[in-house]
Amino acid sequence: MSETFYVVPEEQHNALVTAAYKKRGYSSQEAAAGARFCAEASRHGIRTHNALKALHLDHLFGSAAGGCVPKAKIEKVKVPYRAAAVWNANRKLGQATGYAAIEHAIKLADKYGVGMVSVDNAFHYLWGGGYVIEAAKRGYIAYTNCTAALAEVVPFGGRYPTLGTNPHSWGFPTTSAIGYPIVIDWATSVVAMGRVQQLAREGKQLPPGAAVDANGNPTIDPSQAKYLVPFGAHKGYGLALMNEIIGAFIGGSLPTIRNRWSEVPEGEKGTCAFFFQVWKPEAMSAGAFARGRNQQENVKAVIADVLGHGNEGCMLPGQLEAQWAERSARNGGLLFSEAEINAFNELASEARKRKWDLASFKVAE
Amino acid sequence: MSETFYVVPEEQHNALVTAAYKKRGYSSQEAAAGARFCAEASRHGIRTHNALKALHLDHLFGSAAGGCVPKAKIEKVKVPYRAAAVWNANRKLGQATGYAAIEHAIKLADKYGVGMVSVDNAFHYLWGGGYVIEAAKRGYIAYTNCTAALAEVVPFGGRYPTLGTNPHSWGFPTTSAIGYPIVIDWATSVVAMGRVQQLAREGKQLPPGAAVDANGNPTIDPSQAKYLVPFGAHKGYGLALMNEIIGAFIGGSLPTIRNRWSEVPEGEKGTCAFFFQVWKPEAMSAGAFARGRNQQENVKAVIADVLGHGNEGCMLPGQLEAQWAERSARNGGLLFSEAEINAFNELASEARKRKWDLASFKVAE
Repeated sequence: MSETFYVVPEEQHNALVTAAYKKRGYSSQEAAAGARFCAEASRHGIRTHNALKALHLDHLFGSAAGGCVPKAKIEKVKVPYRAAAVWNANRKLGQATGYAAIEHAIKLADKYGVGMVSVDNAFHYLWGGGYVIEAAKRGYIAYTNCTAALAEVVPFGGRYPTLGTNPHSWGFPTTSAIGYPIVIDWATSVVAMGRVQQLAREGKQLPPGAAVDANGNPTIDPSQAKYLVPFGAHKGYGLALMNEIIGAFIGGSLPTIRNRWSEVPEGEKGTCAFFFQVWKPEAMSAGAFARGRNQQENVKAVIADVLGHGNEGCMLPGQLEAQWAERSARNGGLLFSEAEINAFNELASEARKRKWDLASFKVAE
Repeated sequence: MSETFYVVPEEQHNALVTAAYKKRGYSSQEAAAGARFCAEASRHGIRTHNALKALHLDHLFGSAAGGCVPKAKIEKVKVPYRAAAVWNANRKLGQATGYAAIEHAIKLADKYGVGMVSVDNAFHYLWGGGYVIEAAKRGYIAYTNCTAALAEVVPFGGRYPTLGTNPHSWGFPTTSAIGYPIVIDWATSVVAMGRVQQLAREGKQLPPGAAVDANGNPTIDPSQAKYLVPFGAHKGYGLALMNEIIGAFIGGSLPTIRNRWSEVPEGEKGTCAFFFQVWKPEAMSAGAFARGRNQQENVKAVIADVLGHGNEGCMLPGQLEAQWAERSARNGGLLFSEAEINAFNELASEARKRKWDLASFKVAE
């Protein structure tokens, strides 16, 4: 049986999320960026990183803990390299910072063909895919990574979690070719910690090689699983490590104290770092596509070849998100379960706003 | 028992490889770049992509097949984006093209903070790690990918190979921090086809999820294995797909006809595409490292944290290559097995050069 979803008008969602952010001290602009981003996550079916998660993270590590500072100003660090920008976000709200950074990287790419924005002292930007989808829909190739809020992943061959689950997020402007942007945005662990907890509740086993117990020994018993393992053994480990190394070049410090605000000693840093890149496809094209195709037609032909020859049933990365966005559009709003709507109503109480009435929402097709 | 290696002086290796390339019509400069690159591969223990492989590929797909054209000139395609360059390599030798491209990307990064070079009509550059190690040793972060010579990998959930095994290769300038560059450079398949053949010869099984049979069904029997599978299921699939999509934006055409020169119809393309990026670490630094560290000290502290807490036995990507390079240096030459030396002597016959005398080489420590 498929889950029942209710259609919440986007304005109603944004009004509540904006109010919740403002109640916690954020500016109207920050709150609007926060709400806009969470609406995009929900529109694309990213249920693990919607407004509920955003405001929960803000409570755990953000404005309530000192990790995020409402009304903070981004400070531009001068660097003498014209296609690069470096910012000190001063712990500004992650979504507001992320949106500003991807806009700036697009501006740099328009001029130089490629632009990069490195951000120090950042706060959780929720879902890397959201920023690269934004750029990809506007015709750019985009890439982002960031250091994780918490270290939950054990390096390949190790015993203790010192890495995050954070993906490298890539977006490709393939809308003219296939109808939606290809988005590659996958956690560097085999499964997420939330999935481990879910399997434990359901009495099911983990896939092999997904987790270790408190002693660092592999386990498929979710009740014994304490730390996560990278996907693809040493391969996913390398990808997880990259986030930390890139963060370290920007200004990030030790992963094992990050966001653990009570344990960050004087002179140390507990903030995240963000990295963004945008490439202009016109700055990559040699213009000599086979059979007189243009660039998008060529991308389309290559994808058709990859998914031809008996591979017609394969999915493309970004396809599920695009299908969910279509479903949202068809229903004329954002889709939430009853449990999610109840959680939104807790936010409404906190923000002293009128609660949502479940009966007022139509059931989604 | 560990394998016996013989120490071949680098000049002797380079003289033979240069002669072999020149015999096939390559210019002195191309032959020298080819030999230099192969020496780097052997120095770092990349036995799957040494001079023997390079000249074998040249025979299969290169100068003997029309895929590579000796003395070809690289043509610069004009693009109005200053941090980006686009080249038509006109099927020039891959190593000569790759070295020129990484040099140009470094020049762009010096000026703009980031530089990218997209190359159409390219021929196999052997080992992406070699170009990014070169840049990383000189203080840059570097990235490259390319489209594969052949499609051997089945998309996740598919039946027919339409993707290559090619890695995304990343190099990080971590020599001051840890003694060598971190290099992340791993095939997007679980195992290589050579490994499948080796296990078949040895009567051993494949790991689960590494290959499919002729009907696209999973198999652990290497004698039934026909096509490879991406590492990490849909995750490695996304990475493999990226090579094709980036190549398609540059000018690459259908993966399933690539380098199959007898099957490439008029008006189609069978060449590879290369993509290179270099970032200048100074263009990413916010300059506010914890505890007054400088950038390299910060990178060192982060890596020490990742490999601390009981993870001291973990390896870093690039460590094996660095250890092999140390061993090469300690022995004062490049290390080859007897079988490899015999294969070099076949090249010597082809190039009408004096054969190597096994007894003249000392045995490596």
